Amino acid sequence: MKSFGYAAQSKTSALAPWHFERREPKPDDVVVQIDYCGICHSDIHQARGEWGAEIFPMVPGHEITGHVIAVGSDVTRFKVGDRAAVGVIVESCLHCENCKASLENYCSDGGPRDTYNAKLRDGSPTYGGYSDIIVTPEHFVHTLQPHVDMAATAPLLCAGITTYSPLRHWLFNCAKKDVKEMKVGVVGLGGLGHLGLKFSHAFGAHTVQFTTSESKVEDAKKLGADEVIITKDPAQMAKHAGSFDFILDCVSAPHDMNAYLSLIKLDGTLCLVGIPEQPLSVHPFSLLANRRSLAGSGIGGMKETQEMLDFCAEKGIGADIEMTTYDQLNEAYERVVKGDVKYRFVLDNTALRQA
Amino acid sequence: MKSFGYAAQSKTSALAPWHFERREPKPDDVVVQIDYCGICHSDIHQARGEWGAEIFPMVPGHEITGHVIAVGSDVTRFKVGDRAAVGVIVESCLHCENCKASLENYCSDGGPRDTYNAKLRDGSPTYGGYSDIIVTPEHFVHTLQPHVDMAATAPLLCAGITTYSPLRHWLFNCAKKDVKEMKVGVVGLGGLGHLGLKFSHAFGAHTVQFTTSESKVEDAKKLGADEVIITKDPAQMAKHAGSFDFILDCVSAPHDMNAYLSLIKLDGTLCLVGIPEQPLSVHPFSLLANRRSLAGSGIGGMKETQEMLDFCAEKGIGADIEMTTYDQLNEAYERVVKGDVKYRFVLDNTALRQA
Repeated sequence: MKSFGYAAQSKTSALAPWHFERREPKPDDVVVQIDYCGICHSDIHQARGEWGAEIFPMVPGHEITGHVIAVGSDVTRFKVGDRAAVGVIVESCLHCENCKASLENYCSDGGPRDTYNAKLRDGSPTYGGYSDIIVTPEHFVHTLQPHVDMAATAPLLCAGITTYSPLRHWLFNCAKKDVKEMKVGVVGLGGLGHLGLKFSHAFGAHTVQFTTSESKVEDAKKLGADEVIITKDPAQMAKHAGSFDFILDCVSAPHDMNAYLSLIKLDGTLCLVGIPEQPLSVHPFSLLANRRSLAGSGIGGMKETQEMLDFCAEKGIGADIEMTTYDQLNEAYERVVKGDVKYRFVLDNTALRQA
Repeated sequence: MKSFGYAAQSKTSALAPWHFERREPKPDDVVVQIDYCGICHSDIHQARGEWGAEIFPMVPGHEITGHVIAVGSDVTRFKVGDRAAVGVIVESCLHCENCKASLENYCSDGGPRDTYNAKLRDGSPTYGGYSDIIVTPEHFVHTLQPHVDMAATAPLLCAGITTYSPLRHWLFNCAKKDVKEMKVGVVGLGGLGHLGLKFSHAFGAHTVQFTTSESKVEDAKKLGADEVIITKDPAQMAKHAGSFDFILDCVSAPHDMNAYLSLIKLDGTLCLVGIPEQPLSVHPFSLLANRRSLAGSGIGGMKETQEMLDFCAEKGIGADIEMTTYDQLNEAYERVVKGDVKYRFVLDNTALRQA
């Protein structure tokens, strides 16, 4: 199918309009006309070739909401006109132990394949949500309820599930006490962090926001923080030593893991969802004390992503967003890099529709 | 009480005979005449001032078995003549949440106080097991069954519980499947590792020993390994990628954590019990992939230490030891540093008894 979007032709070229081909829909495919696409920091890293192994031309975007415009003959959950969403992955083996448990994000036979900057098992490249349409197997398409804000929902497909999944896992699946008795920290108040904060609060945990910036204290409280810790103040940090059941670390910039580990109580976990480019430096004693764990988590499976979207619909949770347009894309990228957005840019894709 | 043992007078002096005073037994104290004391690598680190904050004169030793020679008026579990053991800690607050759960090793109100190279809450220094007797509150003294080998049992008090506790925690308390379906790795075949191997095997897990040395393959199999991986062979390592439920890392020398993390499957844990002196370098993606955890564990609580001793008595598990004497102490230290002992030195303390 003919498609139109914004692509980086190389790691040094700015994103620009590009006409390209997507596959004709197979029997299990859903064709979604994209209404909105969030701007994830990983779009920028990859479009600029900062992670290595990039595939160009690259059409970024994996926080996608829209409407179904065509379905293959085997599709059962969608019909033309339905709302739909596509997230970070569009393929996995579907038969390994993890896929069978709907943890497609941890597919152990060939791995999940990303919505853009990846190749599918048949060798074809994937192109993401900075475009008019996307063709995706039904298994990797989510339903959206009729009343949700489609723009504020888009960032849930990456920033949302990335924070929801580890909170669900450690606050419920792994927990030995009620979530209401748990003290949970969220490090960083950006695209990921502000959703982690909303989720932790919605789950009923005593939620503490960590931030370097005094200016974010009021916002954090409005978003659901019971307490806010200014991380530059050693006295505030020390006061909370060994008191957290779980801390969700949403920061990608280099930072001292040991400072946060010291705040974890017996059997607690510090979980990384940001991806710092440099290796972490971890003192062995930071782990031995209190039998602490340093863990990581990457997005979520399809079943849990749908659960998260339904939970957000029920609780009225969306991302706090700033709308932007494709002619402002480079400026938006610069502002994301500087952390100058509350808290996620969302692109209006209706401008990409071909006349 | 008058006591006699071997002490380091400073971090640069070799251990030498020393007469000193221990406290008169309080109502809750047990006085143990020491028969055997294991040599732990941490004895050497601390006697040589390698960890900082050492207290001299220092009488090392925290792997202690012996016989009760006096009891205070409140003591109920021991009488004169009984076998007894003392391990790594001799005091904790006993009222914090962790102490109440018999996790005195993670005491959160002032912390556990070590058997040597520490100060008790009353300010008095502790002196360890390289001596004729030790005076210890009953709460921190363990019973020993009449048939166990007292020399081979001594190293269980540190090396044993240090490996038993994390295996019990992650293979049973935290596990979502039967231990017999679990694949468990043990890194390093030394004082800690050889006991970790015995425990994992005794628990029924499929147990894989990691070693750098071809020469240890047969020994590892005799000690209970179902498989042995030579870590210098990248092909052997790659074959096991993403396949381990749990790996117990007993190595204190610098080594690549990411190589072992890559072997962990979904929701698995790599647990550190060795204490490398340098910070660990951990790649974020090593944790994000498979939602892995890097954890630490430090000895065990009093209840679990007793459970471990009883388990070992029932299963016939002891350390594989080489007996040594105080006049060979410095040579033994050098051999421990070189890893040249199968697998723990134990000192015969009967030589220290005062005429």
